[in-house]
Amino acid sequence: MTYCVGLLLKAGMVLLSDTRTNAGLDNIATYRKMFTFEDPGERVIVILTAGSLSVTQTTIARLRESIDHPEIEGAQSIMAAQTMLEVAEIIGNTLASVREDIDHKMNAAKVSVSASMIVAGQRKGGAMRLFLIYPEGNFIEATEDTPFLQIGEHKYGKPILDRVVRPDTGLEDARKAVLLSMDSTLRSNLSVGMPLDLAIVAKDACRVTGVQRIEANDPDFRKMSEAWSNALREGFQKIEI
Amino acid sequence: MTYCVGLLLKAGMVLLSDTRTNAGLDNIATYRKMFTFEDPGERVIVILTAGSLSVTQTTIARLRESIDHPEIEGAQSIMAAQTMLEVAEIIGNTLASVREDIDHKMNAAKVSVSASMIVAGQRKGGAMRLFLIYPEGNFIEATEDTPFLQIGEHKYGKPILDRVVRPDTGLEDARKAVLLSMDSTLRSNLSVGMPLDLAIVAKDACRVTGVQRIEANDPDFRKMSEAWSNALREGFQKIEI
Repeated sequence: MTYCVGLLLKAGMVLLSDTRTNAGLDNIATYRKMFTFEDPGERVIVILTAGSLSVTQTTIARLRESIDHPEIEGAQSIMAAQTMLEVAEIIGNTLASVREDIDHKMNAAKVSVSASMIVAGQRKGGAMRLFLIYPEGNFIEATEDTPFLQIGEHKYGKPILDRVVRPDTGLEDARKAVLLSMDSTLRSNLSVGMPLDLAIVAKDACRVTGVQRIEANDPDFRKMSEAWSNALREGFQKIEI
Repeated sequence: MTYCVGLLLKAGMVLLSDTRTNAGLDNIATYRKMFTFEDPGERVIVILTAGSLSVTQTTIARLRESIDHPEIEGAQSIMAAQTMLEVAEIIGNTLASVREDIDHKMNAAKVSVSASMIVAGQRKGGAMRLFLIYPEGNFIEATEDTPFLQIGEHKYGKPILDRVVRPDTGLEDARKAVLLSMDSTLRSNLSVGMPLDLAIVAKDACRVTGVQRIEANDPDFRKMSEAWSNALREGFQKIEI
């Protein structure tokens, strides 16, 4: 499984993904699930992926191919799309088409494949937008009322987001919130694993303004995780009922 | 959906269930999901249920019938079983049999039903035991390494349990832990709802030593929920990364 989360805030967008994939229970591997497409200052698109690796890899590969070879018939480049809505549509259509192809191949084995994606982006002059794309290619969008979207193992890490993330949360607090949300997920679910990929896209920069890979032995992350455990335990002790 | 949790501690057992059921998305009702069978001082059994209401109600009704009418052929009373393991087996077999019956009826509608249960109990002279019974009737048991079991929407409320519940956690702290675990679930998932049923079974008492229905407007629960939100936000603010 996977856990990816994206926040859409007034100050910018914050994105975090884990890297664990598994085929069956014991075939564990590390794969990047965050993909960045940039024309710095003009356009930035960050895609987070969850689901069958063969579906997500092929989808990203086709998106790249359309960017690199716009001359191919039917190629629709997300770097040339007029709006972020069009970007979401292209990614949704590509994902749905890849999923159908692979599902068809898997039919023989009576297995079904699926994948979903979070797409964050902004083009110069446009607004920041954050989408969750379903396996069928349709999508929903983050709004002021619901400023975050999650894919994969989203339940463990939702309570902290529900409590602290608001549209006017600053980027530093937002970074902390997604890392703590991931920390809760990592502790409670083995199918989500380090290292983590974090990206910050400040408003109107139209480029990734902060990027970080956080390794399993990262001392800052470990310190944060311990401080959070202590804060929870202390808070727990103080509560009377 | 549902959220039920049971803790097996050195000091006793703590059990909590919500009461929300839904048929479809909009047909919401309140049903008790905690059932107590007691011969005070001799034997106590508490059952928590999750899943299709028709399955869980019929299972509980059949268990009661076997207790009230042990003369019926094949009746196996959980109040007469020699050990808690036998109790778990009787409940597992009853659940599996009811589920099969109803599943068979539902086949025509191409719908499948399912249910699971948590069973906590102790008989005089025996140990406290806590089981999770699967829809197929097989079961697992809580141990020192894993002193809690959950059914239903278990993910939202797991991080807090993972962090604070240990076998030597006291009953008051355990009560607080399950209520906070439920609070996180209530906040993040609409399909789990108040009122709540809480039961405490102190070690070797062989009866329910504390029982409480917590209504939606309960001032103590609301105070606890707010205090926990504040503790989380304060802890969050203090953490540096």
